[in-house]
Amino acid sequence: MELSKRQQQIIEIVKSHGPITGEHIADQLNLTRATLRPDLSVLTMAGFLDARPRVGYFFTGKTGNELLADKLKKITVAEYQSIPIVIKENDSVYDAISTMFLEDVGTLFVIDEAALLTGVVSRKDLLRASLGNQDLASLPVNIIMTRMPNVAICKKDDYLLDAASKLIEKQIDGLPVVDQTPEGLQVVGRITKSNMTKALVELAGNRRR
Amino acid sequence: MELSKRQQQIIEIVKSHGPITGEHIADQLNLTRATLRPDLSVLTMAGFLDARPRVGYFFTGKTGNELLADKLKKITVAEYQSIPIVIKENDSVYDAISTMFLEDVGTLFVIDEAALLTGVVSRKDLLRASLGNQDLASLPVNIIMTRMPNVAICKKDDYLLDAASKLIEKQIDGLPVVDQTPEGLQVVGRITKSNMTKALVELAGNRRR
Repeated sequence: MELSKRQQQIIEIVKSHGPITGEHIADQLNLTRATLRPDLSVLTMAGFLDARPRVGYFFTGKTGNELLADKLKKITVAEYQSIPIVIKENDSVYDAISTMFLEDVGTLFVIDEAALLTGVVSRKDLLRASLGNQDLASLPVNIIMTRMPNVAICKKDDYLLDAASKLIEKQIDGLPVVDQTPEGLQVVGRITKSNMTKALVELAGNRRR
Repeated sequence: MELSKRQQQIIEIVKSHGPITGEHIADQLNLTRATLRPDLSVLTMAGFLDARPRVGYFFTGKTGNELLADKLKKITVAEYQSIPIVIKENDSVYDAISTMFLEDVGTLFVIDEAALLTGVVSRKDLLRASLGNQDLASLPVNIIMTRMPNVAICKKDDYLLDAASKLIEKQIDGLPVVDQTPEGLQVVGRITKSNMTKALVELAGNRRR
């Protein structure tokens, strides 16, 4: 939404002098209250200004981009998560690499006998292990995995943006989407930088899976 | 921006009957033209409706999300690209893996003696090579790389969303940002799914690097 020059002036006045009545804004601009009415309506409905009876208009502190961002902030992990690919703790590193190629994923989740999350292996972990000249077929994946509680996780109701921030902060490609049960964490999904890239594209295209 | 019920009604009327004058919209809603003025201003300024003198209001065909998307669509690769990490064609696969760990990137760009792009290697390529039980220190990277013209590329003025779509379509983690010279392609940047994840987060936070 593009603001007119007058609307921008109004925002500046309210920023400096708010709370301020419509009449006083009009005075400052040498305009009538009636002339300003549409602009004040626009600014209030768009969320830039807020109005309180008998107090006047005040600035909400939100810029155009912030209002745009409000929409983005409401998206949850559940809307973009993928199916998780899991392997067992005692599977070999060789098996893990095969699974990674077969499923074409960058992150595998490691589960125990009870199907609960115990760790994560990334392409980077497997590349490091494969350089070690060890016998990959007899090296169990739980030796090289990142293990709980050091695994970054998220839940399906988490905001997508919080998951994205975690990926950036921890410099990882994917997070397990987990369900907390009395026994431990069940892996119900995976959310990755690929999902984030898709989210970006779909937001622009107004599409949703 | 949340539309009021009346604003939604106006959009529906203009969709069905546009081009239509403000008076006729007011008639349909049993309201006065003056009452409607702020709503028509809001809808026009926000881009939902357009108005032509002596013709009336018509529907632009844009929904709220589409208008939001318009902003997203204008972002270029240049605004989010990172520094490219390059290696030479004759560098070994072992060197490539070392560089990848050292620089902590997922994609390396391969250049020739003239510093022109000849290929790309990903973590996946290196993992595959390392499984081959070859002597990685004596295997040149140009044996295992994806080579031109099969390398997906982008330019700094390309739209970020087009680069994101390429990453998704080609199922790759990163693209070289190139500059076309008479001699060939110079690598000037790198754009990855990490950059896309950052773009998503920064859009919401209204931050820009």
